[in-house]
Amino acid sequence: MTPQIEQEQERASSAKLQERWSILPPEERVQGFQSMSRNEADDFFLSRTPHGQATIIMGIPPIERRLWMRLLEPDDAADVLQEVPEEARAELMHLLDEPTRREVAALLAYDEDEAGGLMSPRFARIRPDMTVDEAISYLRRQARNGLETLYYAYILDREQRLLGIVSFRELFTAHPDQPIKEVMHTDVITVPETMDQEIVSRIVSENDFVALPVVDNEGHMKGIITFDDVIDVVQEEATEDIQKIGGMQALEVPYLQTGLLPMLKKRVGWLALLFVGEMFTAFAMGYYEDEIARAVVLALFIPLIISSGGNSGSQASTLVIRSMALGEIRVRDWWHIMRREILSGVSQGVILSLIAICMVGLLFWQGVFQSHENHVFLIAATVACSVIGVVLWGTVAGSMLPFLLRTVRLDPASASAPLIATLVDVSGLVIYFTTARLILHGVLL
Amino acid sequence: MTPQIEQEQERASSAKLQERWSILPPEERVQGFQSMSRNEADDFFLSRTPHGQATIIMGIPPIERRLWMRLLEPDDAADVLQEVPEEARAELMHLLDEPTRREVAALLAYDEDEAGGLMSPRFARIRPDMTVDEAISYLRRQARNGLETLYYAYILDREQRLLGIVSFRELFTAHPDQPIKEVMHTDVITVPETMDQEIVSRIVSENDFVALPVVDNEGHMKGIITFDDVIDVVQEEATEDIQKIGGMQALEVPYLQTGLLPMLKKRVGWLALLFVGEMFTAFAMGYYEDEIARAVVLALFIPLIISSGGNSGSQASTLVIRSMALGEIRVRDWWHIMRREILSGVSQGVILSLIAICMVGLLFWQGVFQSHENHVFLIAATVACSVIGVVLWGTVAGSMLPFLLRTVRLDPASASAPLIATLVDVSGLVIYFTTARLILHGVLL
Repeated sequence: MTPQIEQEQERASSAKLQERWSILPPEERVQGFQSMSRNEADDFFLSRTPHGQATIIMGIPPIERRLWMRLLEPDDAADVLQEVPEEARAELMHLLDEPTRREVAALLAYDEDEAGGLMSPRFARIRPDMTVDEAISYLRRQARNGLETLYYAYILDREQRLLGIVSFRELFTAHPDQPIKEVMHTDVITVPETMDQEIVSRIVSENDFVALPVVDNEGHMKGIITFDDVIDVVQEEATEDIQKIGGMQALEVPYLQTGLLPMLKKRVGWLALLFVGEMFTAFAMGYYEDEIARAVVLALFIPLIISSGGNSGSQASTLVIRSMALGEIRVRDWWHIMRREILSGVSQGVILSLIAICMVGLLFWQGVFQSHENHVFLIAATVACSVIGVVLWGTVAGSMLPFLLRTVRLDPASASAPLIATLVDVSGLVIYFTTARLILHGVLL
Repeated sequence: MTPQIEQEQERASSAKLQERWSILPPEERVQGFQSMSRNEADDFFLSRTPHGQATIIMGIPPIERRLWMRLLEPDDAADVLQEVPEEARAELMHLLDEPTRREVAALLAYDEDEAGGLMSPRFARIRPDMTVDEAISYLRRQARNGLETLYYAYILDREQRLLGIVSFRELFTAHPDQPIKEVMHTDVITVPETMDQEIVSRIVSENDFVALPVVDNEGHMKGIITFDDVIDVVQEEATEDIQKIGGMQALEVPYLQTGLLPMLKKRVGWLALLFVGEMFTAFAMGYYEDEIARAVVLALFIPLIISSGGNSGSQASTLVIRSMALGEIRVRDWWHIMRREILSGVSQGVILSLIAICMVGLLFWQGVFQSHENHVFLIAATVACSVIGVVLWGTVAGSMLPFLLRTVRLDPASASAPLIATLVDVSGLVIYFTTARLILHGVLL
């Protein structure tokens, strides 16, 4: 085999490995990783999520770990340390070189989901009294020493307070003898260390910043948050919201990497809660047992009617949840949204009730309830009115629940489709049977 | 009033305006925009989405439009043009200067959601035979002429084919006399013009690229896609998926900017479809009318049982939809997922069935169905077995439907919670009444 063919084969098998990675069991992952060439392994390792990197590091023999830990930037190393078991953390920390270890230790003091936990402590710092030319040659030396992020230079005073910022493009195009303090911008957008990552990502994406400086209360510069971290945050937050909207707790690691037992825990809790909530439908049905016994035909439409409330509620709640997550609406806009959704709910209810009338006709024609020949119009009227009521109620409840949750400081995304459906099911039954009593009183009931 | 106080007040009122922007009616938006100082208006305009920018441009008097159109980079101008009514497009195009107009016209040939529709045609191009020093001074001149994106320089041959790439950091740290062709990387990751934006965003976020070159079939460089476009794409795609998961068509513009009628169209279509689908529950119930008439107690548990299938299905489908969107699982992994979900479904079903048994006991104790004193254990058994069957079926159906949709080239995200619930409702009734016939035959039925 010529070396070239060998190389080709190696590349092909590595590509296949990367493709199948997510569904491989952990042992095979580590084996596969160790079979890659050094270059491939480097690229592959760096493109993994912190969770993936932690799996690799914990899977390989301890003697090989130093190499991979040292490949990580301090902020990435801190993320990996947060993914490994508590007891392994100290040992991995010890593998880092002294200055990096200090940087990582400082980062570990922050929560994962706040600005401090996202930032990198390595950024280009210059003094206000340098000239453009001096700054450029200073930064060139810094770049040789491995400073990765060269988009902006930050101008700090002697106490490390942020005075201003200058982009590389501006440095590049400024006159070489101009002092930095004349070139820099002083109206810098900064974020505090404890700001929630969701808000940070919104600021970055609205302003198209490659990097955003993080400062403490006294204005001391602590680090920068770069666009790549923001992309990850945006993906993560969307994943969390989607999982919550689906009616479960958010998984912290990717679906396929979550063990069966931890996943069961995240899912079955909500399922059980919803199941217990749905128990009230049995109570409600028990309360209307006499009506059902007298007119079994009423039972036929129960699933249809209550589900129409759940579906319209699910639409309304996901719309509101997403708009809130994107910062388009705030809690105090609730009345504005309520008015919109009442209009939507009524229109949707009327349209569905027309379909319901046709449907009752069709069922009658098919002979499903021939026995009620004389009352088919009244039954159709009952179903149609109930549908309007239930859809309107579903829409209003679905759109208002996220506001309620946010007001009591819970995540609006917990207003999941299944939760709304459960809430609306019980009230849907009450709406349906109350309508039936009003319309069919003295006739069937 | 001192000028400073005036300035302060202006800033405060502008901040308030920006906050309330999303819920303002269009006329007030334009008024508000026109009341901002030029600097504020600039920042504000550039931070809007293309839809927001289009609203502003169409709202202000035609004579003011040129200024704002010319503030936009060609890729942003193309996005804005795609948001305005067809008949206004030519007029707005005409406001651009000649070279920009040509660039914009080329971009408008691409679909909005493919790589070509995302890219900017302005990037730093250099020749392979320049020295590092020549390249730097050439780029300095280019930067003065308004080249915004200075992260990488692209090395092209005379036919504009991409030969390699060099980062500014590398240019900065390389020896000034070295020829570019010795410094550049030739193993560049590129994307074709027609690649779907979802895949592009995945490549950027996995590799942490600030910018990604777009090339045509012959390797000619067409433009670059920058990180800020990718953040927008990631947000957009998540919003679309969330809206679909909520059981509706994706809105193309933000919730609050969508008129009531267009929104009704996006929502009521799916609602009506689901409503018609749910009609089969009425047929199924009609089929079991005799059983219900003989044992009304069975009707009490209908909402409880069918909703448990819908809820477990909603969890499974959202998990699979999101993992697919993140590229973690592919269609051919279906069997792997199926096995996982069968295990989940059985465990969840068993846990819920235990709750169901307690619940039947509780209802009996509360006197809801005292009349069936002798059969309370059989009723509990019927409910418990049905719950296991329905939850397992919901989980399997929910996890497999996204695969099925992708196989027939539909969006897996359409496997919404309401759709799964509707599908599972009919089959849930069949599972329930079949179990009831088996267990209660000769007793109640």
